[in-house]
Amino acid sequence: MTRKKKILILNGPNLNLLGRREPEMYGTEGFGQYLERLANLYPDVCLDYYQSNHEGQLIDKIHEVGWDCDGIVLNAGAYTHTSIALHDAIKAVPCRVVEVHISNVMRREPFRHVSMIAPACAGIITGFGLDSYRLALEALLHDAEV
Amino acid sequence: MTRKKKILILNGPNLNLLGRREPEMYGTEGFGQYLERLANLYPDVCLDYYQSNHEGQLIDKIHEVGWDCDGIVLNAGAYTHTSIALHDAIKAVPCRVVEVHISNVMRREPFRHVSMIAPACAGIITGFGLDSYRLALEALLHDAEV
Amino acid sequence: MTRKKKILILNGPNLNLLGRREPEMYGTEGFGQYLERLANLYPDVCLDYYQSNHEGQLIDKIHEVGWDCDGIVLNAGAYTHTSIALHDAIKAVPCRVVEVHISNVMRREPFRHVSMIAPACAGIITGFGLDSYRLALEALLHDAEV
Amino acid sequence: MTRKKKILILNGPNLNLLGRREPEMYGTEGFGQYLERLANLYPDVCLDYYQSNHEGQLIDKIHEVGWDCDGIVLNAGAYTHTSIALHDAIKAVPCRVVEVHISNVMRREPFRHVSMIAPACAGIITGFGLDSYRLALEALLHDAEV
Amino acid sequence: MTRKKKILILNGPNLNLLGRREPEMYGTEGFGQYLERLANLYPDVCLDYYQSNHEGQLIDKIHEVGWDCDGIVLNAGAYTHTSIALHDAIKAVPCRVVEVHISNVMRREPFRHVSMIAPACAGIITGFGLDSYRLALEALLHDAEV
Amino acid sequence: MTRKKKILILNGPNLNLLGRREPEMYGTEGFGQYLERLANLYPDVCLDYYQSNHEGQLIDKIHEVGWDCDGIVLNAGAYTHTSIALHDAIKAVPCRVVEVHISNVMRREPFRHVSMIAPACAGIITGFGLDSYRLALEALLHDAEV
Amino acid sequence: MTRKKKILILNGPNLNLLGRREPEMYGTEGFGQYLERLANLYPDVCLDYYQSNHEGQLIDKIHEVGWDCDGIVLNAGAYTHTSIALHDAIKAVPCRVVEVHISNVMRREPFRHVSMIAPACAGIITGFGLDSYRLALEALLHDAEV
Amino acid sequence: MTRKKKILILNGPNLNLLGRREPEMYGTEGFGQYLERLANLYPDVCLDYYQSNHEGQLIDKIHEVGWDCDGIVLNAGAYTHTSIALHDAIKAVPCRVVEVHISNVMRREPFRHVSMIAPACAGIITGFGLDSYRLALEALLHDAEV
Amino acid sequence: MTRKKKILILNGPNLNLLGRREPEMYGTEGFGQYLERLANLYPDVCLDYYQSNHEGQLIDKIHEVGWDCDGIVLNAGAYTHTSIALHDAIKAVPCRVVEVHISNVMRREPFRHVSMIAPACAGIITGFGLDSYRLALEALLHDAEV
Amino acid sequence: MTRKKKILILNGPNLNLLGRREPEMYGTEGFGQYLERLANLYPDVCLDYYQSNHEGQLIDKIHEVGWDCDGIVLNAGAYTHTSIALHDAIKAVPCRVVEVHISNVMRREPFRHVSMIAPACAGIITGFGLDSYRLALEALLHDAEV
Amino acid sequence: MTRKKKILILNGPNLNLLGRREPEMYGTEGFGQYLERLANLYPDVCLDYYQSNHEGQLIDKIHEVGWDCDGIVLNAGAYTHTSIALHDAIKAVPCRVVEVHISNVMRREPFRHVSMIAPACAGIITGFGLDSYRLALEALLHDAEV
Amino acid sequence: MTRKKKILILNGPNLNLLGRREPEMYGTEGFGQYLERLANLYPDVCLDYYQSNHEGQLIDKIHEVGWDCDGIVLNAGAYTHTSIALHDAIKAVPCRVVEVHISNVMRREPFRHVSMIAPACAGIITGFGLDSYRLALEALLHDAEV
Repeated sequence: MTRKKKILILNGPNLNLLGRREPEMYGTEGFGQYLERLANLYPDVCLDYYQSNHEGQLIDKIHEVGWDCDGIVLNAGAYTHTSIALHDAIKAVPCRVVEVHISNVMRREPFRHVSMIAPACAGIITGFGLDSYRLALEALLHDAEV
Repeated sequence: MTRKKKILILNGPNLNLLGRREPEMYGTEGFGQYLERLANLYPDVCLDYYQSNHEGQLIDKIHEVGWDCDGIVLNAGAYTHTSIALHDAIKAVPCRVVEVHISNVMRREPFRHVSMIAPACAGIITGFGLDSYRLALEALLHDAEV
Repeated sequence: MTRKKKILILNGPNLNLLGRREPEMYGTEGFGQYLERLANLYPDVCLDYYQSNHEGQLIDKIHEVGWDCDGIVLNAGAYTHTSIALHDAIKAVPCRVVEVHISNVMRREPFRHVSMIAPACAGIITGFGLDSYRLALEALLHDAEV
Repeated sequence: MTRKKKILILNGPNLNLLGRREPEMYGTEGFGQYLERLANLYPDVCLDYYQSNHEGQLIDKIHEVGWDCDGIVLNAGAYTHTSIALHDAIKAVPCRVVEVHISNVMRREPFRHVSMIAPACAGIITGFGLDSYRLALEALLHDAEV
Repeated sequence: MTRKKKILILNGPNLNLLGRREPEMYGTEGFGQYLERLANLYPDVCLDYYQSNHEGQLIDKIHEVGWDCDGIVLNAGAYTHTSIALHDAIKAVPCRVVEVHISNVMRREPFRHVSMIAPACAGIITGFGLDSYRLALEALLHDAEV
Repeated sequence: MTRKKKILILNGPNLNLLGRREPEMYGTEGFGQYLERLANLYPDVCLDYYQSNHEGQLIDKIHEVGWDCDGIVLNAGAYTHTSIALHDAIKAVPCRVVEVHISNVMRREPFRHVSMIAPACAGIITGFGLDSYRLALEALLHDAEV
Repeated sequence: MTRKKKILILNGPNLNLLGRREPEMYGTEGFGQYLERLANLYPDVCLDYYQSNHEGQLIDKIHEVGWDCDGIVLNAGAYTHTSIALHDAIKAVPCRVVEVHISNVMRREPFRHVSMIAPACAGIITGFGLDSYRLALEALLHDAEV
Repeated sequence: MTRKKKILILNGPNLNLLGRREPEMYGTEGFGQYLERLANLYPDVCLDYYQSNHEGQLIDKIHEVGWDCDGIVLNAGAYTHTSIALHDAIKAVPCRVVEVHISNVMRREPFRHVSMIAPACAGIITGFGLDSYRLALEALLHDAEV
Repeated sequence: MTRKKKILILNGPNLNLLGRREPEMYGTEGFGQYLERLANLYPDVCLDYYQSNHEGQLIDKIHEVGWDCDGIVLNAGAYTHTSIALHDAIKAVPCRVVEVHISNVMRREPFRHVSMIAPACAGIITGFGLDSYRLALEALLHDAEV
Repeated sequence: MTRKKKILILNGPNLNLLGRREPEMYGTEGFGQYLERLANLYPDVCLDYYQSNHEGQLIDKIHEVGWDCDGIVLNAGAYTHTSIALHDAIKAVPCRVVEVHISNVMRREPFRHVSMIAPACAGIITGFGLDSYRLALEALLHDAEV
Repeated sequence: MTRKKKILILNGPNLNLLGRREPEMYGTEGFGQYLERLANLYPDVCLDYYQSNHEGQLIDKIHEVGWDCDGIVLNAGAYTHTSIALHDAIKAVPCRVVEVHISNVMRREPFRHVSMIAPACAGIITGFGLDSYRLALEALLHDAEV
Repeated sequence: MTRKKKILILNGPNLNLLGRREPEMYGTEGFGQYLERLANLYPDVCLDYYQSNHEGQLIDKIHEVGWDCDGIVLNAGAYTHTSIALHDAIKAVPCRVVEVHISNVMRREPFRHVSMIAPACAGIITGFGLDSYRLALEALLHDAEV
């Protein structure tokens, strides 16, 4: 009997407001509801969730789980574009990290076109709404299988 | 009988040292004294104050008060020039935010000439010493009246 | 008995069209009406007004009044972003100049994000509609008092 | 009976020297002669002409005629590349403005490759010698007809 | 008896979709209909038409007709902004080429503000809708007459 | 009875060499084998495949299928970074296009960090090896279902 | 008997304030006094003087005198760094123009390091205080002699 | 009898992983072991140590100790390259701060070539492995002696 | 008995016009004549020749011959400066490719100073007129001998 | 009786070829002849001359004479645009240095528009042919007199 | 009995003037005095010293001693910011080189913020006055010991 | 009887270390051995050789031989990328200069992608190891013959 895969979904700044903030950009579904649906879709995966507006707490979390879990789905929000410290944290741990974005950031302000963390991540998924998280999960599980 | 307006004055990194730090740039008056004078000047306003050196705590605070209060006077200090996360937090909440600076940042190092938060703010007030805070208050109250 | 403060409101190019031009950006009130309201608000201030589309006339005016008056509220319009000559004129005279903008220029085209005159001004007030002028007046009077 | 169309041809700095200045670039025909030929070609158009070396006078002229006439053919000369104030003047008035250039500015110094006024104009015609003016006239009349 | 002038209208990538693609930008008229109207307007001109989405085929065509015809009206579409090879092809042949654009490209994304082919063309006509083609024709015929 | 979804997988320059070219970057599996596996995984999808080294043929193909099919999975290879014409083709057709990359392009040369087509695409999937294609398929099917 | 050489000294914006403005940069001598001394030094030269804060008036003046006089000593002040129109005016007239600066502009703000007019001038003299004007005169007379 | 010097060693983000993270770059010795050796080497110095992944906590710490201690050895990790807030904190306190780096950051990615804190520090020591900390200590003690 | 070396000379856009196009830059000899002379000079080499104005056909050709032949002499013309796809094609095949240019491109427009294909080529030969091809042949044969 | 002023004329790389090199740019007169004429013109000045193509020798010379002489006329040739070491040498010595150029460098290649030494010099004289040296001498003597 | 370590201290342009040049930046102690003190501090080290204002002589010296000595302490002065040749010389020899600066170059002109030699050096020590040399010695000896 | 051609091979900084320095980049053959082989290959050419690490000596040498010899093969090493003075020296003499590089500099650091001397040279040969020198010789002799 194999143990369940452990995957962390890690959300960065302002993503606690999903469903409440700029709905034309991010939709009206709160992340809690979505997470439940996602967990039901993947009953064999042990899904953890953590959100913080603090760059340091995101780093702490990656340090904490990055040695044992099977993958991190990371939406670093605005820190995506500025945080070398997150880049270094991702690179420091052995577990695979997938960068996700809800909106197509390449259609938005130029300062969102740069990702400081992308070179440290296994892959990047951008622009599919909340479905970006499911696709990242798919990617991590597929990899774990092979 | 109308309720009192609620305004938050939100100070970012190193502004806890006002009166103590680089007095030729920032003056010798501590912020506590100034706040008292300001409160006396506007007895009909309920003035809150919060200061933090943590970008994440500033975001948390904006999330906490940004749905109910009548305005935020934000001196984001050095985060003004680098924080897309603060930009997003300001944009996410309905309350009006006014960006203020004590010194005329356009006379200082080039890296202080850029404001990442300005496009998300209602307006910007720069260079009037501590009086910048009063002017921002004036702007928010005027707006609330109309 | 103290003499009345003398303040000049100086408007640059295209601001003669206020109320008529791009109303979604600048509102529908003409500047004449606004000025009247402002004068009533500050009966103890001697408010002068001058508008020109000519960079040279704006410089001439600053030279003319900049030695005696108690402050200039300057909306240099498009010259804000290109005129080093205005910068030099402001720096050449002893009176304090406050830069104002009606709209939040940081939300508009990138060529409006640069101010050539800001380093020469005492302070900057941006984005409060016509109320920017009143706030500038407040700033100048406060300063004169101290 | 329809009224004659009113079109202004507006020439900027140094264009008063046409025929006299750098003939290998601008030809030897003075603008007066050319204008006469053009007027004969379009007897049903009421052609006005104004030239100034002053940015402010060009703006004043656009303000004066831009509400009533059927179009402006604008060769802003060197101000094309630097004047945001002209850009704003064009945008402020309802009449259509066509930007013209005698020489192919894209073959000249890099600082002539940028047009600050182009985004505010209806269209741009560049490089056909004095015939650029006739083509602009054609464009404005065609548009008026439709 | 003079021979008819021969002019080629040469359209680049995605212009086969005119009338079908982004109608708010390019209108709803297909290019076939427009061409017919244009041919009727100039019965003394032998108008050829060619469209391709292939940079190489556009170059081949310029090589084929560029030695004998009286002018080419070239809307290089997106290749305008990137193709040095087209620049070289235009420069290599003796016939005059006029660059045209349907929309005012200076109002669109920054990557459309650069034209790699403009320095090789006789002149440029931008922003008059389909009428840009007629104006280019006018320019070429005028030149041929002189 | 519902019709099968129609999805086109469209590969750009040099992707015909997959399995043969730089195996440390792209793996040793040829695309034919992979395609077969993918088709087996999605028996209810009608998968088409087309590869070309010609920018023009990629545009032609998008024009041909972009009005009727349920989605395009596009690996534009090196044209990703330079082709505005592909950007325009994607934008011109109604069907959704997902940009994919086999390798994590953000770890490679700086000229691969820019995508000219990303703003025109529905979403972007980067860096999961050949699995990027499956994830794109997932994204398109999910969207079609909703 | 030879006629006297005619030289125009042409001063741009804010130079009417010499002796009064930023004395640590520009000295305390007014330009009138200096001019007198200069005229005494060169009794055989007919020295004209003109100052304006208006870019257009400087251009007009160059047009007026540039065909007959023996040289222009031009301190274009802040317009040096921004005015392509002055560049064109200088190039349009046959007389030689020498660019002068009182202060060493290369020690000041970066925006003063660029001269738009320098390529159109015969030569440039920078940083010798008011003596820059005498040196320019020397240069023009020397040239006239040869 | 002189009091012992007080020096704080302050480590930024990801430096808690030393010995565990990218050993080819940072070595395999944990910081704890190193610190012990260092303390033995300088028995007359009172060495404090603090590490945090939070920018705000680093600032708080500098505020706390920066008024009394004899020096801070600061390895700000990735915040070195982005944090103006740390720059300001260093500048705000009287104690001397030495910037250190374990690896030679000038051999790594271009975004590590910039230090936002360097101008606020007394000096910089880069690239000597863990020995960089000892050298910084040497520098601070030497300075204290003189 | 050794087999003859097989070398492909591959010419890009507009090079079919050699001898006919800009003779002051490229000379008056057609490439056919030159090729004959070159073949006579190297009777032991099997020289193939291919020219195309289509980027895609150049890539196809490199794919076709790049696995078996002893070298490619590539004058990619204008695609040199823009084509990442050619870069990738060269890198994908095992045969050595030498980049050649007839003119000294470093003396021409800045957009010709960049070569996108140079890092993928074995070496580069620039500026020797048609003799550049012979030198490239020399380089490839020398290499083959060793 | 006053001692004669001592002035050094210091010429940098390639200026030993004056009269022989690019005569259309630099004239046909050798520097020796010119120097003789200059010495005759200023019999009361003790003129020294030194030329070197070695950056180090120019620095050595400035160190040698820069403490005692009354001024240095420095044409640093190409080192003007690249040598920070010369900048530092000029700044290190008390004597005044005037930067001169024979040609108008602002009309030449962009890499000649930058002067690394200008901020360290007293003033700059550019574009008057060999007469630039005389004007620099005039400037230094005038300064010495005052 | 171990042989003494051999270390070269190598000073670049203008450092022969230490104690004499810009004392507010570099102090008043000449380098000779300092060297003596340093030698006394490290009796077991054989300290060599060489200074030159010539880039070539610095390279020659590195070539001469770089194969045998135990380390070079290099203050390349202004050549730090421009010399790729020094970079290559350092990389070419096996001995370790430490880059030092007396002043904190990051507080000075932007052109001093770039080091062309840093990536070739073992480490960098900046801003500790003359003590930077001792620290570099410490670093080299420590390294030699291990 | 014709005289032998005279060709100078001129090597810049660090090339005296060939065979000894970074052998994976430059090979293990010393330049002396190579030169001998080259001389044997071309018995009818009088080959001179000179190497210096001093920019000034390279210039001196070009001045010395550049008027009489039949060509210079110049590997300027690191000075290639920074020396305008060498550019000017090459341009000043009538003899043809060919720029060579042993390695493919376009694959190395970005600062090696720029050549300051290329526009002054007849042609450029890059990346063929020591064979680059033979190819340059070929180029010069061919040219001399024609």
